[in-house]
Amino acid sequence: MLENISSTKVSGGWHKQYTHQASSTHCAMRFAIFLPPGASETNKVPVMYWLSGLTCTDENFMQKAGAFKKAAELGIAIVAPDTSPRGENVPDDENYDFGQGAGFYVNATQAPYNVHYNMYDYVVSELPALIEAHFPVTSKKAIAGHSMGGHGALMIALKNPKQYVSASAFSPIVNPINCPWGEKAFSNYLGGDKASWLEYDSCELMKKAIAEDYLPMRIDQGEADNFLAEQLKTEHLFAVVNEKDYPAEINMHAGYDHSYFFISSFIDEHLMFHQKYL
Amino acid sequence: MLENISSTKVSGGWHKQYTHQASSTHCAMRFAIFLPPGASETNKVPVMYWLSGLTCTDENFMQKAGAFKKAAELGIAIVAPDTSPRGENVPDDENYDFGQGAGFYVNATQAPYNVHYNMYDYVVSELPALIEAHFPVTSKKAIAGHSMGGHGALMIALKNPKQYVSASAFSPIVNPINCPWGEKAFSNYLGGDKASWLEYDSCELMKKAIAEDYLPMRIDQGEADNFLAEQLKTEHLFAVVNEKDYPAEINMHAGYDHSYFFISSFIDEHLMFHQKYL
Repeated sequence: MLENISSTKVSGGWHKQYTHQASSTHCAMRFAIFLPPGASETNKVPVMYWLSGLTCTDENFMQKAGAFKKAAELGIAIVAPDTSPRGENVPDDENYDFGQGAGFYVNATQAPYNVHYNMYDYVVSELPALIEAHFPVTSKKAIAGHSMGGHGALMIALKNPKQYVSASAFSPIVNPINCPWGEKAFSNYLGGDKASWLEYDSCELMKKAIAEDYLPMRIDQGEADNFLAEQLKTEHLFAVVNEKDYPAEINMHAGYDHSYFFISSFIDEHLMFHQKYL
Repeated sequence: MLENISSTKVSGGWHKQYTHQASSTHCAMRFAIFLPPGASETNKVPVMYWLSGLTCTDENFMQKAGAFKKAAELGIAIVAPDTSPRGENVPDDENYDFGQGAGFYVNATQAPYNVHYNMYDYVVSELPALIEAHFPVTSKKAIAGHSMGGHGALMIALKNPKQYVSASAFSPIVNPINCPWGEKAFSNYLGGDKASWLEYDSCELMKKAIAEDYLPMRIDQGEADNFLAEQLKTEHLFAVVNEKDYPAEINMHAGYDHSYFFISSFIDEHLMFHQKYL
């Protein structure tokens, strides 16, 4: 059962938050949806799923990205899930980069995380089914995200190229198996066998992609991003894109950092990018 | 001395935060400035001052309004002060609607508030002098705000009609002497003599305005705003506007509430409104 917990008019459309008991994560999950003006059962709209980064909830993007004016104009719904399971019974960690707020969009295989930390199934299967059953949307889906959520968006699109028309990311962790954030998360959620990590690594997935599964991608990365060298490693994806001739546009931006100020500067371009395929 | 505490590229321009020891409020004050792309000593830009509402700092508008794309396009700088003096030595109150975060843009006359709570002088005199001395801006100023800050913007413009080219407000407290928020703040900051309150009440100031001091105003108010009936009382200003034939456009919006989702929906229109006069 969906429980509506807020409903706010914005840019002629509506921003609404819901909670529901999720079967994939075995806890109550909150998500937010933006419905553009005119969306109705007789005028269904496509959806851009937005995956947020470390520490975020469904609220960061919705409050700070400044996306609604363009999404309203283009007629695109936006759905933002939380970034992890939550609750007193959900294992957590005292650091910001693991546990609650840091689900990394994988299905955990290791105890005690494997009961709740199944964000991959939640985002890929449970949430879209719920959205398509309860809201005036089509089955056309794009996926986008920021940082850990940029990893999630690219990785999920690469693993499910028929389910999404396009994918985009701001400041994504493109090669989690080769950076401290990813190594910490994957070793705890997936265990020590690094072969299992490859299934959630965008660089590795893109290396294995076959041309008929290619889908359009756009990546924007700030050059003044403090996490670029150690965690994000955009150049690793760039090398694979070149090697595979993958249709991914990678835009480097002088002066921009890792914050929502960067996202707000280019979110309209991402919405227009997805609109070409939705 | 201005101390820079953050500098972030956004929409081709820069968002920067500073602190300085303020002589009007006798404490360290933080403010934020957005400088549009191309602003320089040889290409100075006009400024829109933004006054925020109860509980806010300089950050709420800058993070949530989605104003930078349009401000960049129009070449308008935006300056957002804090909403009160702050610090351990600054008298506070346990409630959200008085004390720190709730300066109401007046000069307090009552102890213990009269030492620090001089936000009127800070916003009208000290801050603009500082901004014009240290940043590539012209002396052309518009003023805008939300809720308590909407009260501040309209009141300050009415008291200083030669200093600002235009004023605008979202969801303003238009008649603070006749609402609980205003009565609480004014009785504590200004004392029991209600004659002294009239000097900070937009309805009362507009009643006394002479035609040569009229300046263009724009007010936007959501009809689903929970504070409309008890605190904001837009209809009181509407009556004075009609009586005086004051050039204030008041737009009521069905369905919108008191939040930044409302502000983000119409901030572009406010920037374009001010641009006509800046």
